[in-house]
Amino acid sequence: MGDPAGVGPELAAAAWALRDAERLPPFFVVGSARVVEEAARRRGITAPVCAIKTPDEVAECFDGALPVLGLAELPYTPGEPDDAGASLALDALATATGLVRSGAASALVTGPIAKSRLARVGFDHPGQTEFVAQACGISPENAVMMLAGPSLKVVPITVHVSLRAVPDMLTTELIRSRAAIAASGLSRDYGIASPRLAVAGLNPHAGEDGRMGSEDHDIVAPAVAALRAAGIDAFGPLPPDTMFHAEAREGYDVAICMYHDQALIPMKALDFDAGVNVTLGLPIIRTSPDHGTAFGIAGSAKARVGPTIAALRMAGECAARRALA
Amino acid sequence: MGDPAGVGPELAAAAWALRDAERLPPFFVVGSARVVEEAARRRGITAPVCAIKTPDEVAECFDGALPVLGLAELPYTPGEPDDAGASLALDALATATGLVRSGAASALVTGPIAKSRLARVGFDHPGQTEFVAQACGISPENAVMMLAGPSLKVVPITVHVSLRAVPDMLTTELIRSRAAIAASGLSRDYGIASPRLAVAGLNPHAGEDGRMGSEDHDIVAPAVAALRAAGIDAFGPLPPDTMFHAEAREGYDVAICMYHDQALIPMKALDFDAGVNVTLGLPIIRTSPDHGTAFGIAGSAKARVGPTIAALRMAGECAARRALA
Repeated sequence: MGDPAGVGPELAAAAWALRDAERLPPFFVVGSARVVEEAARRRGITAPVCAIKTPDEVAECFDGALPVLGLAELPYTPGEPDDAGASLALDALATATGLVRSGAASALVTGPIAKSRLARVGFDHPGQTEFVAQACGISPENAVMMLAGPSLKVVPITVHVSLRAVPDMLTTELIRSRAAIAASGLSRDYGIASPRLAVAGLNPHAGEDGRMGSEDHDIVAPAVAALRAAGIDAFGPLPPDTMFHAEAREGYDVAICMYHDQALIPMKALDFDAGVNVTLGLPIIRTSPDHGTAFGIAGSAKARVGPTIAALRMAGECAARRALA
Repeated sequence: MGDPAGVGPELAAAAWALRDAERLPPFFVVGSARVVEEAARRRGITAPVCAIKTPDEVAECFDGALPVLGLAELPYTPGEPDDAGASLALDALATATGLVRSGAASALVTGPIAKSRLARVGFDHPGQTEFVAQACGISPENAVMMLAGPSLKVVPITVHVSLRAVPDMLTTELIRSRAAIAASGLSRDYGIASPRLAVAGLNPHAGEDGRMGSEDHDIVAPAVAALRAAGIDAFGPLPPDTMFHAEAREGYDVAICMYHDQALIPMKALDFDAGVNVTLGLPIIRTSPDHGTAFGIAGSAKARVGPTIAALRMAGECAARRALA
């Protein structure tokens, strides 16, 4: 559900209301039935809620109502986060992760939380990804973020750090290991037998033979070589500015990017409303709509449901592939 | 004409062949009639050349032939640059700049050159932009590059430097002065009375209140404030990843970007084949197709004419606005 004061509850209801038109797989909310019901009403959506005790009940009620596995009944206070809501968001995350780990559910779609809020109630991870990784027994370094839209998939090797810090954080091993995890994930969950990895350079023109920085030659190129030696179809380092136009994108399945904005600028320019945040390298499938709690517009029906629908659909597609494997 | 061994000559001829369909203003080539004629033939284009002595003759012959102000008659050797060709490219650049400076022509469109080649024949500028600036009596720091496509205009504050060097090169005054030159240029040559400048942050999420770098608060924000104090409609620093989607782009006329790829990744992702390189801050109008000599495909008819057409058309539009002013 994410933070009950954010846009998570209303977007879950809005997605359910579009379940047929958008061909969504059956899903359920972990959180609070009352919050979801009131959020739906406030958004002007007809979305009856059916309280469930276990995921087994979802199939039966999903057609006629949005199943909610309730952990607490809070009042719905959009835009006004508090500690009780943060605790519920944390409980919901832990419960949902456990249900997917156990096999009771096929995939985890996390709603938006406010990290600073959760920290006040004892959450000591940088974000939900790290929490989920640890709950799955995976080192957070091996949980790799991918942003996936209809036009483009990107993996940023470094993420939430200042631009100044990027060059010294990049190592050949970091690039190699995250790119290899991305390749495995695309094979396993996206039906791409031999994923093609376009590896971006760090510098303009990928350094232009060292005239604009040595990192592309010294750090990125050896990572590409190591990936190729391991049988992965990686190529680069590529000039970053010419790798994201339509014709260039036909040549690869994922762009391995060196920093946050190198990955997210083209992704959001092309697929703003349809980007899904995926965590690769986990034993479970985990997706997330690519936006925050948006406290400022929660309860006003302004938040767009596109990213939630995209995250639910992608989770369902990946789960179906694993079920067939 | 640019380097005679590059794609400049054939693209001038190809653009002329499309002059009516593309509604191009009358233009002429400064360089070599023989090179242009042979380049057209090799590309399979019917483009008769008419040798002119002065720009006065252009209007008369443009409908029936491509006017060329010849400076030398070299053989056409696509893909095989030599010193004679580099000398001709340099002479052509100097002559064309002079013709525009004098008012004999309305705008300068520079073809692609190879800087390292020109350096061998005495060219001691980092690029054509700096040469043109000096020829116009302007300090190169005040010649501001803008990339302009149908979807987006961008001004990179720093350009051909390593990513590592960017944070220390950025100063409030550099951002302020280049953004102010961009605003003036958009008013003067693009018919935008009060240009709206979206100023990108340097760091992810524009630093997120200092959690990811201090530059957005310490350097970028004061530049925005100074621009606003001078009556310029600038705003930011904005989170770079969410400023380039279609709806966001409606809110501004130009994106002021902190580094090369922050500007060029979204520009080329959106407008790959139609980006024009414009130099603002000069007393003359100067545009350029946004690609290099492409020696590898010169003479093979593979080079796309779109950027040349876009550069010619934009130069004509800007010249028409100045003529009316």
